Parts: sequence; C-alpha cells; structure tokens
Amino acid sequence: MNKGEYFNMTQGEYAYKLAEELFPICRSITGDGVRKSLRILQREVPELMIKEVPSGTQVFDWTVPKEWNIADAWVKDKNGKKIIDFSETNLHVMGYSIPVHKNVKLNELMTFIYTEPNQPDVIPYLTSYYKEQYGFCISETQKTQILNNYSENDEFEICIDSRLEDGYLTYGELIIPSTENNTKEIFISTYICHPSLANNELSGPCVSIMLARWLKNLQKRKYTYRFIYIPETIGSITYLSKNYKELQKNIIAGFNLTCVGDDRSYSYMPTAYGNTLADKVLQNVLSFHYPDYKKYSFLMSGSDERRYSAPGIELPVVGFSRTLYDRYPEYHTSADNLSLISPSGLQGSFDVISKCIIVLEWNGNYKMSCLCEPQLGKRGLYPTLSRKGQYDEVVKFINLISYLNGKNDLIDVSNIIRVPVEEILDNIEKLANARLIYKVL
Amino acid sequence: MNKGEYFNMTQGEYAYKLAEELFPICRSITGDGVRKSLRILQREVPELMIKEVPSGTQVFDWTVPKEWNIADAWVKDKNGKKIIDFSETNLHVMGYSIPVHKNVKLNELMTFIYTEPNQPDVIPYLTSYYKEQYGFCISETQKTQILNNYSENDEFEICIDSRLEDGYLTYGELIIPSTENNTKEIFISTYICHPSLANNELSGPCVSIMLARWLKNLQKRKYTYRFIYIPETIGSITYLSKNYKELQKNIIAGFNLTCVGDDRSYSYMPTAYGNTLADKVLQNVLSFHYPDYKKYSFLMSGSDERRYSAPGIELPVVGFSRTLYDRYPEYHTSADNLSLISPSGLQGSFDVISKCIIVLEWNGNYKMSCLCEPQLGKRGLYPTLSRKGQYDEVVKFINLISYLNGKNDLIDVSNIIRVPVEEILDNIEKLANARLIYKVL
Amino acid sequence: MNKGEYFNMTQGEYAYKLAEELFPICRSITGDGVRKSLRILQREVPELMIKEVPSGTQVFDWTVPKEWNIADAWVKDKNGKKIIDFSETNLHVMGYSIPVHKNVKLNELMTFIYTEPNQPDVIPYLTSYYKEQYGFCISETQKTQILNNYSENDEFEICIDSRLEDGYLTYGELIIPSTENNTKEIFISTYICHPSLANNELSGPCVSIMLARWLKNLQKRKYTYRFIYIPETIGSITYLSKNYKELQKNIIAGFNLTCVGDDRSYSYMPTAYGNTLADKVLQNVLSFHYPDYKKYSFLMSGSDERRYSAPGIELPVVGFSRTLYDRYPEYHTSADNLSLISPSGLQGSFDVISKCIIVLEWNGNYKMSCLCEPQLGKRGLYPTLSRKGQYDEVVKFINLISYLNGKNDLIDVSNIIRVPVEEILDNIEKLANARLIYKVL
Repeated sequence: MNKGEYFNMTQGEYAYKLAEELFPICRSITGDGVRKSLRILQREVPELMIKEVPSGTQVFDWTVPKEWNIADAWVKDKNGKKIIDFSETNLHVMGYSIPVHKNVKLNELMTFIYTEPNQPDVIPYLTSYYKEQYGFCISETQKTQILNNYSENDEFEICIDSRLEDGYLTYGELIIPSTENNTKEIFISTYICHPSLANNELSGPCVSIMLARWLKNLQKRKYTYRFIYIPETIGSITYLSKNYKELQKNIIAGFNLTCVGDDRSYSYMPTAYGNTLADKVLQNVLSFHYPDYKKYSFLMSGSDERRYSAPGIELPVVGFSRTLYDRYPEYHTSADNLSLISPSGLQGSFDVISKCIIVLEWNGNYKMSCLCEPQLGKRGLYPTLSRKGQYDEVVKFINLISYLNGKNDLIDVSNIIRVPVEEILDNIEKLANARLIYKVL
Repeated sequence: MNKGEYFNMTQGEYAYKLAEELFPICRSITGDGVRKSLRILQREVPELMIKEVPSGTQVFDWTVPKEWNIADAWVKDKNGKKIIDFSETNLHVMGYSIPVHKNVKLNELMTFIYTEPNQPDVIPYLTSYYKEQYGFCISETQKTQILNNYSENDEFEICIDSRLEDGYLTYGELIIPSTENNTKEIFISTYICHPSLANNELSGPCVSIMLARWLKNLQKRKYTYRFIYIPETIGSITYLSKNYKELQKNIIAGFNLTCVGDDRSYSYMPTAYGNTLADKVLQNVLSFHYPDYKKYSFLMSGSDERRYSAPGIELPVVGFSRTLYDRYPEYHTSADNLSLISPSGLQGSFDVISKCIIVLEWNGNYKMSCLCEPQLGKRGLYPTLSRKGQYDEVVKFINLISYLNGKNDLIDVSNIIRVPVEEILDNIEKLANARLIYKVL
Repeated sequence: MNKGEYFNMTQGEYAYKLAEELFPICRSITGDGVRKSLRILQREVPELMIKEVPSGTQVFDWTVPKEWNIADAWVKDKNGKKIIDFSETNLHVMGYSIPVHKNVKLNELMTFIYTEPNQPDVIPYLTSYYKEQYGFCISETQKTQILNNYSENDEFEICIDSRLEDGYLTYGELIIPSTENNTKEIFISTYICHPSLANNELSGPCVSIMLARWLKNLQKRKYTYRFIYIPETIGSITYLSKNYKELQKNIIAGFNLTCVGDDRSYSYMPTAYGNTLADKVLQNVLSFHYPDYKKYSFLMSGSDERRYSAPGIELPVVGFSRTLYDRYPEYHTSADNLSLISPSGLQGSFDVISKCIIVLEWNGNYKMSCLCEPQLGKRGLYPTLSRKGQYDEVVKFINLISYLNGKNDLIDVSNIIRVPVEEILDNIEKLANARLIYKVL
C-alpha cells in the first residue's frame, strides 16, 4: 500500500450524491427497496454480491421473517382528499404494516396514528417487525390539524397496499481480496434497512462504498476486506449464523458503521471488553484525529456491535459513529434527512476508518538491527543545525528508535511516544531504507 | 436457597433485645461472664458449642492466660460509704485486675484511678491482660468530686474481690452444615470479651446470631457456615492455632464482625492485599447498598481481620463494621451503651452480610447456551410496547446476556453492568427457565 | 554493611572542593583535559583505572573520533589587543574547533562568533564533534561592544592553536568489589566531557567519587560496584560496545548521575518502561526523601540513560538529577559555574543515591517464622504503656509483620506500609535478633 494514495481522496461529495440517490427508496429489513438499493451500490462497486436467505430459515435462536413490500398507502377523507399520503414520504407508514383497506370514523383512525408529541413538527419512524399490525406516522402538528378539521362522525377511507409473505432477506456482501493471498480480514458492517433516513442509515453504506472503492484502487493490500450491507439485528444474526466460524478465524479487526454522516462529533463504541485490536486502532487514530472524541460504554451499545461481541461470537468489531444513534434529536424522525449529513461529515468518517486501515496494513513489531543507538548524523537523519522545529522531529525519531524493541507494535509505540502512526511510518521507511530495522512480527 | 426468604426478615428488634439481656454481664477474655454469655447465645441457637482451652496452653507464639473472675469491688470512705461501686457498672474495675483489699490514703488511691480527661463524663474501659496490676476506672467528673470532697489524710478501704488463676479460655463455635454436603465454608467471627459495652462488642455477637438463625431456616445452603464467638486477639490466635489448616482448606470467604450496631456509616476493612472473594463480595454489596461506605486501609486494621490475614494464615476474611472501632467518640467508654446501638443499626449490618451470603450462595460462572443473542420477544422476555421503565429493564437484561460468557462470575458481571447481584438473579432465573444459560463453574 | 556508618557522612564540602580543583581544566570528549581530570579523580580513589580506546575504533554503529587538544586561542585587534582570550575561559572556543590562524575583517569575524541572544550576559557552550569547523563563543553583550568599538574595515587576527588528530578516547573505570565475592553489580555512570561547567558536569563525577570513597570504607558490601567516568554519548556507546554482555549479566540496578549539584529540586528519569529495580528503588527513596521530586517521561530523556535503555541493551539504569539538564536557565552556559552548585546540593544527591544503595544492599524477601502474630510484649517489643508516639511505632512494626510473607521485598513493603526502608531495617534487625524472621530470597 502506498500511503500517498490516501491523501488524494476527497470523496465526501461523491458519497453525499450517492446518499441523495438512495434517499427516496422505501427500505425495510426485507423487500424490493433493499434489492433496489443494493443494486445501486453494486453499480458503484460491481464486486458486491447480492445474497438472499428464504423466510423461515432458522438463524441461531431466530427465524428469518416474511418479506414485506408496499405499493402505496393513504388516508382519504369523505371528499376523497388524501390527508396522509405514502407517496409524499415513506415514513408515513409504520414499517412492516400489514395490508388494510376499510372505512373508519375519526376516533378509530386515531388509534392507527402515531406521532412524536415532544417534537411536534417531525414524523416519527416506527416499525413492527415481529407483531403483525399496521399504522400511520404523522407529525403531532398534522394530527392536531386533522382533529380540528374533522368531527367525530366523519368517515375516512384508509388503505395500505402492502404484502407480507414468504420471500427473502436480502443483503450485500463485498470481498476485496488481499494482494498477498492473505486470508486474514478487516471487516466493515453497515445497514440497509432504513427508509428515507439519511444519517441513520444511508451514511453507513455510503462511507462503506467510499472505503471499498478506495481499497480496490490500492496497488497492495496486506489484508482481505469484507464489507456487508445488512438489515440491522436480524441481518447480523443471519449473516453470523452462516459465517461466524470463518469470521472468527479470519477477522483481525472490524468496524460497525452507523450514523457516520453528520459534522458534530466522533464516537467510539468499544467491544464488550474493549481489548481487541479494533479497539486499539480506533482509539489510537481518534486520539490524534479528534482528541475530544466520545468513548461510550458498551453497556449503551444498541447496534450490531453488540451481536459481534456476544458470548460465543466474540469478534473484534467496534462501533464507529459521528454523533451516536440515540444521542441526536433528529434520530428516527423525518428530521434525519439529507440536510443532517454533509460531504465533510461523510469524509470525516472515511478519514478515520481509512486511517485505521492504513495503520493496520502497516502495523507490526519492528526491531532495531543496530545495538544501542544508530549514528543518525552520518546517514543524514540528524540535522546539522539544531533549530526548534527540527529538534522536535529528532526527538520523535529518537523516541521511536527507543521503543523499537520488537515487542511493541506500531500502535503501542504511537501510544507511548504520542506521535500518530502516520508520522511514525515516515520514519519507519527511513529506518528501513537505512537497514536499521527489521520486522519481527 | 430461596431468595424470597430473606426479604421477610426484620430481626433488628430481636437482636437489640438480645443485646439488652447480655449487656449487664461482666465479660473479659476469660471467665464466667463469657460462659454465661455463650449460654444465652446457645439458648438462641442450640447448635452453638461451648469450648474451653486450659490456661498455659501454647498457641503459636502465645500462651493461654489465667482465667479471671470477679465477684465484687468497691472503694469505701472512712464512713463506709461506697464511693466507687462495681455493682453499678463493671467498667469501674480495670479488666484482669488482681485481687486487693487494703486501706489507702487519698494520694495512693489516686494512683489506682483511671479517667479519660478529654471526655470528662465517661468512664473509660481499661484492661491489663498481660501485666498483673489493678485499677479503678471512673469519670473525670467523679474524680474531681472525690478530690473536692476528701482531704489528703482521709482513709479509704479498697477491695477488688477477683481471682486470677489457672482455668480456661472459653469460646463458642457454631457450624451450620451445607445441605449439599459441601465442605467449603463461609466464616463469621466476632467477640465476646467486652464487659458492659454495646456497639463494641455486643453488636457483633447479636448480628452473628441473627445470621445463624436465618441460615438455619433456609431450605438449601450450598455452603457450610462456621461462626465463632471468641475473645479478641488471644481468642483468634487460639482458634487459629487449632484450626488454621482446616480453615485454609475450606473457607471461601469470611467476615469479622465488630461495631455493627450503630446507624452512622458502613465500613469495609480489606484483607492485607484486598484481593480475596470476601473483599470482592463485600465491596460489591456495599457499592449498591450504601455507595458512600468507607473503605479503610489494612494499615489501620486493629482487630482480628489482621490475624486472619497474617503471613502463613492468609485467610480470605475481611472486616465489616458500621462506624469503625476507634473512629467514634464513645469507643471504649461507658458511652458505648445501649443507646448507641439500635434495631435498625443491627438490621443494616444483617442486611449487608446476608446479601453477601446470598451472592456467594448463587455466585458462579454462567454461559449463554444460545449463540449470538436470544430472541427475547418470542419468549415473552421483551416488552411488546417500549416504555421508559421497561426499557431500563431490557437494557439490564441485554447487558447481562452480553457478559454471560462463562468467564465472569456474577459479581464480575454485577460490577461491569452496575446492577446488584440480587436483581441479576431474577434474570438468571428467567434465563435458566428458558434454558438459555448453563453453569460453567 | 553497617548502616550506622552512613549517618556520619557530611562530604558535601569535600566534593565541592574537588569540583573547584577540576573546574578550570579544559575537557572535551577526548584529550589531555580528560586525562588530567581522571588523574585527579584517581588520586582520590586510586582503584580508578584510566583506559583508552584508539581513534577510528568501530563501536556499534559509531566510530571513536579523533582526539582534540587545544593550547591557546584568541582574537586580536589591529593593535594586538586580545579581545577574545581562551585563557580567560575555555568556553570561548567551540569544542572540537579545528586549528586556524588568519586575518579577517569584522564581517567575517562575526561568522565565527556564537552568542546566546536570549541571555545576553552569558557565554554559550558549543561543540561540533562530528563536523569539522571552528568558532568563538562570547556573550551577546561582548558582541555588541565589539560591533560598537570596531568598524567594517578593521582587521583582526584570529588564532586557534588546536590539534585534531588520531589519538584516544579516554575514560575512567572503577570497580569496588563485593566483600562476598558477589558478581552482581550496582552501576554508576557519569560524564567527564564538559569544560568549565559546574553542575553539568562536575557535579556528577564529584558525587560519584564521594560514593566510591564511602563504599570503599564499608566493612561489608553485598554487591560489586562499577563506576564509569566517560564522555557523554560516544563514551557510553564505546563502553557498552565493549562490556554490554557482562553488564547485562551482572547489573541489578544503575544510576546515571548528571546535574546533581544544585539545591533546587530532585529529578527521576525512568528507564524506557519504568519497571526495573533501579526505577523501583529510586522512586521509593525519593518518595520519602523529597516527596515533591519530579518524575520525568523517558520521552524527554537526553542523556546516557537513553543509551542504557536502548533496544538490545536494556540495562536497569535510571537517570538521577537535582534540577534536570535543559530545565535550568544556566544549562550549557558560563552561568553554570561554581556558584550554581553547593556542598549541600552535592550532599543531597549523595544522600539519595547512598540511601538507594543501602536499600539495595539490605533488600530481600523476608518471611515471618512464627505463624499468625508474634507476642511482641513478652519480647519487650511492645510498649507496656500506650502513649501516642510509641503507638505509631507499634503500628509501623505490626504493619511490617503483616507484609513479611516472603513474597514482597523490602521496597514493596515500604511502599505498602509507607515507612522508609531505613526505618524498616531497624525493625528487621529486631525481628531477626528475636529469630522471628528468615530471609527467603
């Protein structure tokens, strides 16, 4: 891998445009919206494979649910005026709503209507995957208008033209092989199960695709890269039930990407014990990239990183986010739209994960081949004049040498000498060129 | 063991009444006061055995001392008026005072009189176990009165009708066997060597008896329970010299109870290295029961927990107190009387130690039998509607599951997920009933 | 070793006088100034051996440089007046200046003149060991005067009467053998490469000689002591290249002494990982001797302790200083003169290192031979009357006993019970005399 390649990337705009294209599609944990979205991602990275698992398949303690599709939905008043219309935004229908078509009075209508009273102007995002029911989601403001405009005896025609039937759970899998035939893997997992929501979760797939395209173009990849694009919870359980032994054998570090598109913060969600290589590399990179990053407790984990850390699975997969799910007001509402994410927000996430990848690609235990301390001066590695800035560089160099004992990997050394691995790599190259180090591990 | 049984206990009143009955008896490290006290405890728990070790017995580096008994003691003025009278309070005589009967002038009398000048209204508690002497203890106020009321040439008749002669060191031992024939033991040690002092030390024996009665009535006991009622220092040395190999083999955790009757605080005195199961369980329970509990340094240890931690003994026995000895003004004075302790103070100590016992009885390493994450919903373990309170319960449940990997015991899990073991046990039962866990250790 | 001997030492005055004698000599990393200085040290401790390594010798990655000597140097104005004169202070000539004798104009003269503009009244100390050049060092004030007193066309005669030619690197080595034929060593390293500078670095050799004289006079020495008096960097590299395998086999702890003569502070420079016996003993002693001592990060290390910690060398050698090099304004200037150091400053350093040596000499793992707790009273080790001060002594004694389990060494015990090892040793003697302990390790 040539480190230089990375620094030419400014793909935030690209990822944002991809999010714009994906935004209107009605996705859920299954169905044609997922297929359509995956085909768009496949267009961007043709190696992405679309895979399907039949409804009813037993996956660990769970069962793959029926497939859900929806054509249209609305509520009409007695004059035939659509007062709620799925075609305006797919958030208007509760995910996995069973079909319905009937006339109801105002009171009964209200029993199917869900709002978020604390945020009166947003439409909440609701689903009912495992209990068969139906519902409409609107803003509290719209609900108040309906109650004002109609009276108790007014009739409404409600229609949800959906199908809940045996079908498939669909997901994407993308393998970018090591250029060195190395079966050890770095793993990236993200979601494709949310309808028109931007940060949670089009940001994850879009950053993931950025990463895949960048990796494909590298001349050398020490590791194999596995990306998956799955529905949350049932998707990871399904994928793990088919692949966990292979993943346990191969994954050296993984990242669960979610809510990676805003500009407000950076968040690290540890594995259950916070002691894996993934934890180590992400903390190291964030400590230099954004020292104010937020480290959460695994006890607050609510996404697939919890499945990856589960007893018996125990994969080294951390969660990475900009502002964490559940910690921003727009979460799971219509306010999580394209204005919440930005090219720079997406780029920031790409920067962090791609730096983690660079660190992992280069990581290893190096040892000085020369005892005591090399004479840097005679090799042009020591400034002849001691000026302030240069002295700092010399200190970094000498500190690096002091810790290249073959027992520390580069992340350890970076943590000890408080210099980003990126900067260490420049000096590692110089030392390697001068044949002053060799790789132990 | 049925956890429910514990919650019906409100025995503080019972323990307080027992303390009232024991209070007037003149106890010391040996003698009839100890025998009489142990017989009262034996009446409450008939399994308690009273054991005697002859004076002169070599116990490690020590020798069992002579037995001390006292019938009466007084100081009379020339008119035959008793100005100091043992029958008013046995604190008036220094413990282990040798017999004396003679006439003395005021000045000589004063050489046998001990007071606590900083607390003028209390009678200090003094003993002289290993140097043969005698003395009277009175309040500084009373001493001033005597000096005011009498002149230098006044004569006084002093009498201590005591006997210091070969006899026995007497202690109580109470074994409540495991219902599973388990020889592993939980150990409770406390003192019966103090005369009319309430917190230090009738509280210890009374809480200990509460615990014994509660344990006896349990249907199941995983562990055997050993209670000892001994004189401080020489009692533990004597008991250890006879039993330490057996104790080292069997005790998994123990508690030295002292000053457990007041309402002011909770104190934890660690073992020498603070790293035993007893340290772990007591800290865990106190951190939930009374987070402001005081953790002392073993360097300040002044009771038998020091003997239990001694080199070559090294038993996992912590000290537990409400307000620690030496840290409350009434300590070792007549102000440590029945008004210093209370039913609620005694009950609080019972609560903590009985919770420790419940935790130890149930403790173990559990492992999920289902990979990844069980589907709680289909088993009725997940609420269909997500409400705030219920969500907290679900988080506790899911966090518990995440750490049931067979390597953590329940105290570890409790410390990680910050939920008391008691609450964890409810969920452990649910998981066990759903056959989702099994016990590894 | 008799601990008492140490307490009679007040050798600060002696060391200061030695520094006064050595101060005027022009030292560098090689040359006659070094030889002359070492001969003075040898006069004080005749066992000191003066050793020489020829120029051109390969030492690890380095080469022993040419030997440098200087007879005289000056700058004269057109009237023959010496405006810069080496005989006033040897700091006026840049170390390792090659010979020169020529006439120059004012502008050219200025290109050879070095000052410290931020400290206008001091002459900076400069060297150019590895690039052949020459220069004069003067105060900024003097430079201004020259510029004011002379005009552009004035001529100057400059002369440096030096020789840079094949010769030797000279160093001192002093072995004071164990009185028990123990090959295990304690190691003291310091510098003899600085010209007329007092704290950095005559303080190091003078304290080192104090230590050697004190050690020689001890009746018993468990360990062998190795002192080296070397030029910084090239000296340690040269010495290590010849001796590192022996040092790795024998040294249990070592101290690099530099800047040990002022009265301002105490400084501890750890080894690379801060985990050696040298780190342990120095921190322990400083924590009692001067709790406000400054612990530096190894990342700031700039002296030979870095060489001793280098990968592949990894000797347990810490740095010890009063105020650390580079942290006091007089560092590497003419202000680092005899007024900066003092008898008490030198004595303070002697006190710390000699205490470290005492601790190491006596250190070991002791175990109680009596189980549980010895009866101190019957051996006169427990006060019959309990008074405040005495009680503190008893607590120290009992705490000591509690941690003599054969697994802790005396430094561990000292750190646990927060009593200096010196004070512990008194009680260790009492316990040994009473046959209550034995040495395990």
